[in-house]
Amino acid sequence: MGLPKGTNNCITDIQGVKVGHVTLYEKLNEEDTICTGVTAILPHEGNLFNEKTRAGSCVINGYGKTAGLVQVEELGLIESPIMLTNTFSVGPVIQGTLDYMLEENKEIGDSTSTINIVAGECNDSYLNSIRHQAVKREHAVQSIKNAKNEPVEEGAVGAGKGMVCFGYKGGIGTASRVVSVNNENFTVGCLVLSNFGKRGDALFANWEDKALDTPDGSIMMIIATDAPLYDRQLKRLAKRCAAGLGRTGSHIDNGSGDIAIAFSTANRCTHFTDTAMESVTYIRDDHPVMNQLFQAVIESTEEAIINSLKKADSTEGRKGRVVEKAPLPDAE
Amino acid sequence: MGLPKGTNNCITDIQGVKVGHVTLYEKLNEEDTICTGVTAILPHEGNLFNEKTRAGSCVINGYGKTAGLVQVEELGLIESPIMLTNTFSVGPVIQGTLDYMLEENKEIGDSTSTINIVAGECNDSYLNSIRHQAVKREHAVQSIKNAKNEPVEEGAVGAGKGMVCFGYKGGIGTASRVVSVNNENFTVGCLVLSNFGKRGDALFANWEDKALDTPDGSIMMIIATDAPLYDRQLKRLAKRCAAGLGRTGSHIDNGSGDIAIAFSTANRCTHFTDTAMESVTYIRDDHPVMNQLFQAVIESTEEAIINSLKKADSTEGRKGRVVEKAPLPDAE
Amino acid sequence: MGLPKGTNNCITDIQGVKVGHVTLYEKLNEEDTICTGVTAILPHEGNLFNEKTRAGSCVINGYGKTAGLVQVEELGLIESPIMLTNTFSVGPVIQGTLDYMLEENKEIGDSTSTINIVAGECNDSYLNSIRHQAVKREHAVQSIKNAKNEPVEEGAVGAGKGMVCFGYKGGIGTASRVVSVNNENFTVGCLVLSNFGKRGDALFANWEDKALDTPDGSIMMIIATDAPLYDRQLKRLAKRCAAGLGRTGSHIDNGSGDIAIAFSTANRCTHFTDTAMESVTYIRDDHPVMNQLFQAVIESTEEAIINSLKKADSTEGRKGRVVEKAPLPDAE
Amino acid sequence: MGLPKGTNNCITDIQGVKVGHVTLYEKLNEEDTICTGVTAILPHEGNLFNEKTRAGSCVINGYGKTAGLVQVEELGLIESPIMLTNTFSVGPVIQGTLDYMLEENKEIGDSTSTINIVAGECNDSYLNSIRHQAVKREHAVQSIKNAKNEPVEEGAVGAGKGMVCFGYKGGIGTASRVVSVNNENFTVGCLVLSNFGKRGDALFANWEDKALDTPDGSIMMIIATDAPLYDRQLKRLAKRCAAGLGRTGSHIDNGSGDIAIAFSTANRCTHFTDTAMESVTYIRDDHPVMNQLFQAVIESTEEAIINSLKKADSTEGRKGRVVEKAPLPDAE
Repeated sequence: MGLPKGTNNCITDIQGVKVGHVTLYEKLNEEDTICTGVTAILPHEGNLFNEKTRAGSCVINGYGKTAGLVQVEELGLIESPIMLTNTFSVGPVIQGTLDYMLEENKEIGDSTSTINIVAGECNDSYLNSIRHQAVKREHAVQSIKNAKNEPVEEGAVGAGKGMVCFGYKGGIGTASRVVSVNNENFTVGCLVLSNFGKRGDALFANWEDKALDTPDGSIMMIIATDAPLYDRQLKRLAKRCAAGLGRTGSHIDNGSGDIAIAFSTANRCTHFTDTAMESVTYIRDDHPVMNQLFQAVIESTEEAIINSLKKADSTEGRKGRVVEKAPLPDAE
Repeated sequence: MGLPKGTNNCITDIQGVKVGHVTLYEKLNEEDTICTGVTAILPHEGNLFNEKTRAGSCVINGYGKTAGLVQVEELGLIESPIMLTNTFSVGPVIQGTLDYMLEENKEIGDSTSTINIVAGECNDSYLNSIRHQAVKREHAVQSIKNAKNEPVEEGAVGAGKGMVCFGYKGGIGTASRVVSVNNENFTVGCLVLSNFGKRGDALFANWEDKALDTPDGSIMMIIATDAPLYDRQLKRLAKRCAAGLGRTGSHIDNGSGDIAIAFSTANRCTHFTDTAMESVTYIRDDHPVMNQLFQAVIESTEEAIINSLKKADSTEGRKGRVVEKAPLPDAE
Repeated sequence: MGLPKGTNNCITDIQGVKVGHVTLYEKLNEEDTICTGVTAILPHEGNLFNEKTRAGSCVINGYGKTAGLVQVEELGLIESPIMLTNTFSVGPVIQGTLDYMLEENKEIGDSTSTINIVAGECNDSYLNSIRHQAVKREHAVQSIKNAKNEPVEEGAVGAGKGMVCFGYKGGIGTASRVVSVNNENFTVGCLVLSNFGKRGDALFANWEDKALDTPDGSIMMIIATDAPLYDRQLKRLAKRCAAGLGRTGSHIDNGSGDIAIAFSTANRCTHFTDTAMESVTYIRDDHPVMNQLFQAVIESTEEAIINSLKKADSTEGRKGRVVEKAPLPDAE
Repeated sequence: MGLPKGTNNCITDIQGVKVGHVTLYEKLNEEDTICTGVTAILPHEGNLFNEKTRAGSCVINGYGKTAGLVQVEELGLIESPIMLTNTFSVGPVIQGTLDYMLEENKEIGDSTSTINIVAGECNDSYLNSIRHQAVKREHAVQSIKNAKNEPVEEGAVGAGKGMVCFGYKGGIGTASRVVSVNNENFTVGCLVLSNFGKRGDALFANWEDKALDTPDGSIMMIIATDAPLYDRQLKRLAKRCAAGLGRTGSHIDNGSGDIAIAFSTANRCTHFTDTAMESVTYIRDDHPVMNQLFQAVIESTEEAIINSLKKADSTEGRKGRVVEKAPLPDAE
């Protein structure tokens, strides 16, 4: 009874949404391996500060260090790329993203304008020598410059390089769904950074449990849509990620930062204007297509998580630890 | 990989927790049928006002009329029975519960004390002639007096009499799970009032879709535990109901009031005291048993929903509408 | 540096906003006096269910029993009168308001539609024999029918009949402010039900402290505006009530239910429609007039509280208790 | 009717609380001046990660870039210094604080442990050439090392170097109050980073308005207490900052990030332990001293803001802009 998938079953099926990765991998010595990265999601192809996107978020479990949500909640807007990285790299990633945005927008910080950067993270310290703080501000800038509106590379790539999910190699995954109303199609896409769960928890596979000494982990879930919605409604979409996550078997563990952010590419908000008034046109909450949008969030979140496993190859990290590719039937 | 069930797989497996129903059913004429009721959950067997219970709540989707959550969130305490009924009966149920509590506690309203009543609802208007407002304050009082610490009657009973779930007859369902730490067992129980979903949405059955003209529906989920926790932690438990709900196939539709309330029978808080200080002893958030408690919430919520279907018999309501018993293999 | 006041310095300066009172006062015997009431605020003169108003709320302190906020937060809409009464009368007031709305709207509860009633309260048990539950559903209906778009009667009237504020007689108070942008005027009005504070706390008077055995008390603050705003923005307005309240000297005591609700008469949302899309036009958050709207909320909240004192006459309640009129210079 | 002040009327009146500044000031050329800094508040003198402090926060207005609140809200704990700086320096300040904490705690990031850094900011771009990003990670480390449990230097110092408040020079201010219960004294201290308001808004002075081209500004308010409280209660304290802020005349403008964080030095939570259970002893919410603690928050917040003005000297910043010392009667 599932909804139809988008053209490439990918968050970049939404026109203009761009994703870029920088992957860092280097075996330093017997003990230490750099196995991490940065992933940037750009809500559209224009100037993100000048043309802000409507957004909402939901902290399903807040054991996480995501920055930037305070302002997203207050204003219902995102004005920067959404950045994903490891837990100790939120600082340099904010800084690098700021560098990029200041370069693009000379008036930020010179006039009275500031800018809010959104950066989420998961803890890749099982494979990655996270104390080395290998991610630098330049890597954030590069991931933004790498971003393209093309099918996204998934698995052990970008911020996903060192992540572990359900005891197998996880990382970046994506999926999308299409709904229609009045002969118009709208797409919902999800991109996840998956890093949670034990083998025995998975509901989509029949795996024997095997304890790895991994942290409780986390998951970042980014929802994009071209459906015209506004902030309160996008928060509603973000909340539905909990159901998609639950379907995979997650227990939303104590130490898991399970955070969802949803944005719409419609109804952009211009920064520079003297106008007092502006308008948004949006889908009514009580129209049946809204329930389909919720369903699309749930299905694409669930599948994005599974895809992050299917696409991730076995990876060796610090201390000689190897996390294997998940034995899923139709994995590439 | 599921957790072991409690003695009776029931919310009343938690010592002292009592559940009582009043069921109203009367065919008035061709058009109208009273098909509704009240269900009371009492957190313990003592005076609920004098010995308050720690609690937290989570509004998963707020298309609902639940009363009393403002104060639960502020103080982290429940001081009344938790009442369930239909959407138009929140008023009389608050009033009746107040009658009961005033009778038991002569000082409320005479000294400076007030009392906060918690009452949740689902919309049973597909089967029930809800505009008749058949539930009176007396029914609330009676449901409280009927409450027992015994296995709970499930299905089309109490507040569940007129509810519809996944296009079949729903209503009251319950389940429980047991976790242990240091040779001590703790039980988590869930009681739901189920009233949501379409046939094709169910993940636990393979049902062909069939449109009923039912509202989006709602679900109330009440979590009880004897594990020593405090308010912030109980809110965390309540949040996990979203994952249990998601596992059944719910899309958390627009018109659905999906609300979870969790309480602990440990760490009661005495109303009458001059003491300045008090203490709570609780399970640390980072102890592994906390994740098991989360798992117990998710599993018992999922199963309580399925049990509400298994136990509910086909029911005829207003306008001659019949909602059938769900064709589930091991239903009674 | 204050903003100019509205025509009548009243919440009904906003076109279409109506306020109605029912006051109950009867000395039953030496011990008991009924000294309470109901106040209804109607957001506009049309059918409130068919033409919903955008709204937001803020629970400044949640020791309160206000019903209906869960759905206001989810959907950003109010579809009923906003009702004020005493703490034990939320039940009958919800019921009476439902009666009124069902009478006006035959399809509620017959089709799949339900309705959300908003009802707030303060504890008037110092003067009122609150255990008598004198407010009946009929009083709620009558207060709605009494509502007029005329200057509001203030002081010891309606829900304010038994309230005590800063140790003097409080109750209903109102005030308004006007802002302009592009030659267009917008009005912000506040109506309060004041019932908090000790004499020594007041910042607007120099009163010696005198202990009354009153509860910590509460305040309900209702903000109306004709400025075109949407739900998130109205929540921002509601939040500013805390600053207005703080200016009077309130310490937002533990036992105080300090709750603000803000609505706009612009941008109504039609219930019955098959349209998928709708639009709102609103004032940009970053336009300077938004800060003036915030200022208008703060100033009108502060003055509404002071007006509730100026207009309230000395009142005798249960147990022969008398609460005196506040000695304020320009009180009537 | 105010409460008595603490020994030094300072946040460091709470035993063990330490404050350290790094101030950066350099005139680079006619256009550009570095006029900024970092301020660190350490909740106690021990290892902040090993001995976490109970905490709560309140976002009064979320136009701000504060990092770390997601986890504070989830777990009710602070495990790092609380860092204050300018808007563009949150990144390097997080990174520098992480450097410090990793140096002190070798197991973070090596075992499964991570760490949550709390960093708040205000926009000092009126005086400071903020695009230069002069604050480096080393400055954060140094501010932590500079921290002492001694009377705090106030005014144009640390993160306050470039801040503007009510159109005069603002920055760091502090104040404290003492309450007692059962012959035991508890102190509440507030430290603010003040950067908001126009001259005409001030309620504590009679200033003619004068437009400066400053941003809406912001304020960070940090509340410390030795009263034994837990997370939910500390959130209640944080919320009361809105009333203290309101008393000064703030309109909580659109572009203002008005954020409060409260912590208690009692009831610390040990990181390393295998214990399943732990206890907290706390003041009951309904004990009268709780209202005094609320009053203490309000009074110390209000006075800390005024003190930030009294102690700040006229300062010249970029583009030759000079912000004058506020003409307050008893300023030093």
